[in-house]
Amino acid sequence: MSIITIIGSGMMGSALAFPASENGHTVRLTGTPLDREIIEHCRRHGRHPKFEQSFTGKLEYYQFEEVREALKDTELVICGVSSFGVEWFAESVLPILPPGVPVLSVTKGLLCREDGSLQCYPDYWAERLAQLGKDNELCAIGGPCTSYELTAHDHSLVAFCGRNRATLERLKRLMSTDYYHVIVTTDVIGIESAVALKNGYAPGIALTIGENFKRAGSETELHYNSQAGVFLQASREMRKLIAMQGGSEESYFVGIGDLYVTVYGGRTRKVGILLGEGYSIDEALEKLQGVTLESLVVAGRVAKALRIKARRGEIELKDFPLLMHVDSIVTDKQPVNIPWQEFADR
Amino acid sequence: MSIITIIGSGMMGSALAFPASENGHTVRLTGTPLDREIIEHCRRHGRHPKFEQSFTGKLEYYQFEEVREALKDTELVICGVSSFGVEWFAESVLPILPPGVPVLSVTKGLLCREDGSLQCYPDYWAERLAQLGKDNELCAIGGPCTSYELTAHDHSLVAFCGRNRATLERLKRLMSTDYYHVIVTTDVIGIESAVALKNGYAPGIALTIGENFKRAGSETELHYNSQAGVFLQASREMRKLIAMQGGSEESYFVGIGDLYVTVYGGRTRKVGILLGEGYSIDEALEKLQGVTLESLVVAGRVAKALRIKARRGEIELKDFPLLMHVDSIVTDKQPVNIPWQEFADR
Repeated sequence: MSIITIIGSGMMGSALAFPASENGHTVRLTGTPLDREIIEHCRRHGRHPKFEQSFTGKLEYYQFEEVREALKDTELVICGVSSFGVEWFAESVLPILPPGVPVLSVTKGLLCREDGSLQCYPDYWAERLAQLGKDNELCAIGGPCTSYELTAHDHSLVAFCGRNRATLERLKRLMSTDYYHVIVTTDVIGIESAVALKNGYAPGIALTIGENFKRAGSETELHYNSQAGVFLQASREMRKLIAMQGGSEESYFVGIGDLYVTVYGGRTRKVGILLGEGYSIDEALEKLQGVTLESLVVAGRVAKALRIKARRGEIELKDFPLLMHVDSIVTDKQPVNIPWQEFADR
Repeated sequence: MSIITIIGSGMMGSALAFPASENGHTVRLTGTPLDREIIEHCRRHGRHPKFEQSFTGKLEYYQFEEVREALKDTELVICGVSSFGVEWFAESVLPILPPGVPVLSVTKGLLCREDGSLQCYPDYWAERLAQLGKDNELCAIGGPCTSYELTAHDHSLVAFCGRNRATLERLKRLMSTDYYHVIVTTDVIGIESAVALKNGYAPGIALTIGENFKRAGSETELHYNSQAGVFLQASREMRKLIAMQGGSEESYFVGIGDLYVTVYGGRTRKVGILLGEGYSIDEALEKLQGVTLESLVVAGRVAKALRIKARRGEIELKDFPLLMHVDSIVTDKQPVNIPWQEFADR
């Protein structure tokens, strides 16, 4: 049995403690400097404050000052920071990674370069590692899996991506259980793009839920025609964007599953519904105070990248009416007006 | 303004009376011999017995004995029969179609030929028309649109397919409204395959809902990880099957939207849930007595076609573990045992 160190005790990182510890591994859940109270809570109650289920098996809890101890003899570092912690992870964790230990990241997002290309976090961290003269392997998790349902032991089908298939197969053996099912793929940019993009599209689908609430009251039954129509358009645009990134069709399928689960997955859904009900982005953010809305950051970054690429003649913005509409709501504070005609007439 | 004749007063055919009549057309809703009471009900109440909304605009109701009158001066025949009425439509309606009047079909399904190829209904009817020395154009509707929500005026994005783009554009003008949005495409086999296949895959996704009910009680919240995992696999298999049929990626996107709405769309969902809860197919059918389960017919026919193609070395059954599992439950009365490992290890 192995030692697995999770850094970042947010919900997704912490949920991965379940399959890891149930496989008999020792799991060292390590907080970032922002996670102090979560770690204290875990120590006191053996349970993450956001989860109903208590941890089982060999769990150890570390504050970030103790991270070197948490990394001792570890076989795998799981990075569970949010996209707002990417730089912190580069500065605070990459330099102290033990040689030969791979990283498996659940952080979702993309960075927009000046030429409009979108870089994924594993590639960004690999550059930073190279500057440090280190060569730890950087792998990542994508696919449909919300933390609540992972802790509830619902079946999940996810993808581990990385450059080295042998490493991925080893990580798959460490983490797979009878309910946590792992696809492996070397298409890192495809999976990471899919994972980020779904966060830009899920609020677009949820707009229709809000529009129906506005039209027929919040007690109305859910209307799936309009959700499905926007899902259709999201599928088209995601496929095109993943191909633009150089990703494979298989990674697009992983992204489509991820989009499906994200429409029902909480925060992203909520902001889309509020916008669909007619609240401005500022009002929606006020109502969801304190909630990190990584999805909105992604939509903005991808829209920015597309505008640069369109100016360079590499793509046409009219191929992405849904993403551009979400961006116009979020960035330019425009009202919701789903461009159905453009979806139909393309 | 035009006259539009709908033949078959089931829910989907009848729901199309809403956009048609709201565009100012005269709609002649015509029952099959099985629809006698529905037509009587419509005449008496101006409302379809299954709908909450009354018809509006110029509606006329015809029993099938009056079909020649219903077809007089019509510009379009909408075929709203179920897949069990395909032969009846060929024998009873094709021979009396007025020259030059196109058919727009909402019937969903595929026929399995002896060589394992799957024929769509428009192509089957075109063969029958040719035998009659007639050449009416055969178009069809695919994409995410349930009848209930169409009558509720929820936004719907659908595809009209046919051989002749000018005809499709004309039908689009006849039927489009500010909530009924129409894509046109000449990929008939792609759209019709997508539309049929989603009926084979939706019960597979719903199995996970039933499994969770069985595990945690029918009051449990819905678990979307497992739904999304099977949706991921369904996306993979549908894309491969539509390509096998010679259909385009665009038609696959239409099918994915259709799959999304069908998981929530009633009958197909119900049978999947019952099977997931542990009922045999016979018990599930008993509980859903009187309900036409076209989806099960499709799964069986596609599985049969795949077996023939596999024997001929044209495909590998291991590429379709989800469809073959649904077929094993439906045709061979096997218990549910979702092949997650095969989804992950492919």
